[in-house]
Amino acid sequence: MKERALKIFKRVPGDIEAVILMNDVEPLLDPAFFYATGASSGLFEGAAVILWPDGRTELLASELEETSARSTDSEVKVFRRALERDKMLTDSLAQVKRLGVCGSGLTYRALQEIRKVSQAELVDVWKDIEAVRMIKDAKEIENIREACRIGSEAGKLIPSFLQEGMNETMAAAELNYLMQKLGASAPSFATNASFGPSAAEPHHSPGTDRLRKGDYALFDFGAMFNRYGSDITRTFFYHRASRRQKEMYEVVREAQQAGFDAIRAGVNGKDVDAAARAVIDASPFKGGFIHSLGHGLGLSVHDGGRMAPGADMELQENMILTVEPGVYVRGEGGVRIEDDIRVTKEGHELLTFTSRDLLVV
Amino acid sequence: MKERALKIFKRVPGDIEAVILMNDVEPLLDPAFFYATGASSGLFEGAAVILWPDGRTELLASELEETSARSTDSEVKVFRRALERDKMLTDSLAQVKRLGVCGSGLTYRALQEIRKVSQAELVDVWKDIEAVRMIKDAKEIENIREACRIGSEAGKLIPSFLQEGMNETMAAAELNYLMQKLGASAPSFATNASFGPSAAEPHHSPGTDRLRKGDYALFDFGAMFNRYGSDITRTFFYHRASRRQKEMYEVVREAQQAGFDAIRAGVNGKDVDAAARAVIDASPFKGGFIHSLGHGLGLSVHDGGRMAPGADMELQENMILTVEPGVYVRGEGGVRIEDDIRVTKEGHELLTFTSRDLLVV
Repeated sequence: MKERALKIFKRVPGDIEAVILMNDVEPLLDPAFFYATGASSGLFEGAAVILWPDGRTELLASELEETSARSTDSEVKVFRRALERDKMLTDSLAQVKRLGVCGSGLTYRALQEIRKVSQAELVDVWKDIEAVRMIKDAKEIENIREACRIGSEAGKLIPSFLQEGMNETMAAAELNYLMQKLGASAPSFATNASFGPSAAEPHHSPGTDRLRKGDYALFDFGAMFNRYGSDITRTFFYHRASRRQKEMYEVVREAQQAGFDAIRAGVNGKDVDAAARAVIDASPFKGGFIHSLGHGLGLSVHDGGRMAPGADMELQENMILTVEPGVYVRGEGGVRIEDDIRVTKEGHELLTFTSRDLLVV
Repeated sequence: MKERALKIFKRVPGDIEAVILMNDVEPLLDPAFFYATGASSGLFEGAAVILWPDGRTELLASELEETSARSTDSEVKVFRRALERDKMLTDSLAQVKRLGVCGSGLTYRALQEIRKVSQAELVDVWKDIEAVRMIKDAKEIENIREACRIGSEAGKLIPSFLQEGMNETMAAAELNYLMQKLGASAPSFATNASFGPSAAEPHHSPGTDRLRKGDYALFDFGAMFNRYGSDITRTFFYHRASRRQKEMYEVVREAQQAGFDAIRAGVNGKDVDAAARAVIDASPFKGGFIHSLGHGLGLSVHDGGRMAPGADMELQENMILTVEPGVYVRGEGGVRIEDDIRVTKEGHELLTFTSRDLLVV
């Protein structure tokens, strides 16, 4: 997409003559490739896109994605074999002396393939590409807003399918189904349902743990829409909540509110993190918040940028970020509340709207 | 896992003193990391595992995956920040002069991080690791067999949810839900439902196309079980099938049977491809089979190895491969039939069992 290529060239060092983004085999695909091409359909393994300073984009795609490739505004070249692709790359890059690559999305194997087809000096410009990608354009915001709407509507319905004895995998299946019925092309990442003590591990994968009365029931989920995702967490209590569980929930909720209140363009992300973290560290759950307050969101769930201690990042208008404080107690459980926001000049726009009230269901 | 690390060291050059597998951020995670650790739960962004020649594996994981990490048989070191991880890596790798890396799963960014913590010469051993991973061990076969069982059972039920006017996205949602109800942790890749002319693009993403009488209805799907996937394609005809559609189907089915018949340990994959391809190229659909006959299957859907023209690969016992001939006609539609097999000494074990009969539903 011309305007995206131009933005990238405004940011990279001036002597970069072209930028190449190249995919390996799934799951090793570069989100920046999909940013630059805007391709909404297709897998694009082994595909490459060359960006030129005048905004022109040259898309080399296999026959398997020819239709998808031609639906983009790139100049399309179709190859049947990797050798044919390499010949095309050699021709296109023949005059390029300094070539930008995106090290965060490029495998070392693909890098070696680029070295074979080009004599250019390779310059890793992933930080520049990430900086550009963090500020979402109107089309991206539209997609994320829809992904957030779908996720939020599905989130509201979680209490309707919870049943005693249900296992985590089945609960995740129900939630995925709801999101897809509401218009998601897929979940934006592997849905996490954590019951009881499993909720103490932030990146738990759903398993055979069954829902019991008194359990923490934590759901971390998101909807994919036109390749863009939402990322939401809600923690429920099943049938009853102890005084301690309620206190944990309210602390996390207050921490999230403190985060929301601190967000606006010009503020540093680490200060937003500090505002939320201070609430938890002033509570009996001090030290229980073991991850960042939030991260960028877009084509990837962890889309670049973090609001975290020591992470220097000035918030800018149209960054999309998660705000997700949590408290985790090994062997017992945990609470996380996560919403997605767009940074504005004055503060933020909240994109997700599942209730954040403490819910005993 | 000790026996997997030992297998890798039997294969890599003898002067490699350690192998490191390191994840970047999702989706840029190395399937070989999960092979080496056997971790069945957890995301493991930024995590690394060091394999030693005596089979010892040293797993560096963030706090977010501490529980998952400790459920493996690796020696676990837990870090809070990337800097802490880098310090651990520096210490562990201090004596290593030649260090293996896996270029097919490692980002260029992560490679640069490894260069910062180690003075060792880096040797890309992805081909060795792929060769080891292609021969599945008993535990892997068990997981894949279950993934194939779930996918096959779900595949049988596709006709039960097809309705005129249903769009591709909803059909994919129904199939995902069935797989998860049958025990899948997730789909093993983004389910492809292609109706009508969309079936002509092998890697079409489901969209808003609606099912009409006379349509090709192609489903490419798989179940994930303990991180291992199945990969199945079935093509149905909705309400009626033209003589041409029936002929296309029967040609593809015969091509698949020719492929099955040619498979056994010791045969070259390109000869299996040729046997199947010959059937299509002797039909009116000559030239319509625009991809490989099959690929390895396991922790990734495209798990290394291909049965394709010019791809030199001797089949070995306990390779797991897809067999998936297809015919595609732009503007009209396409047929693909895909099953998963285990190579045996005498032939093959068919792991998927959804009916391959022509079905007008």
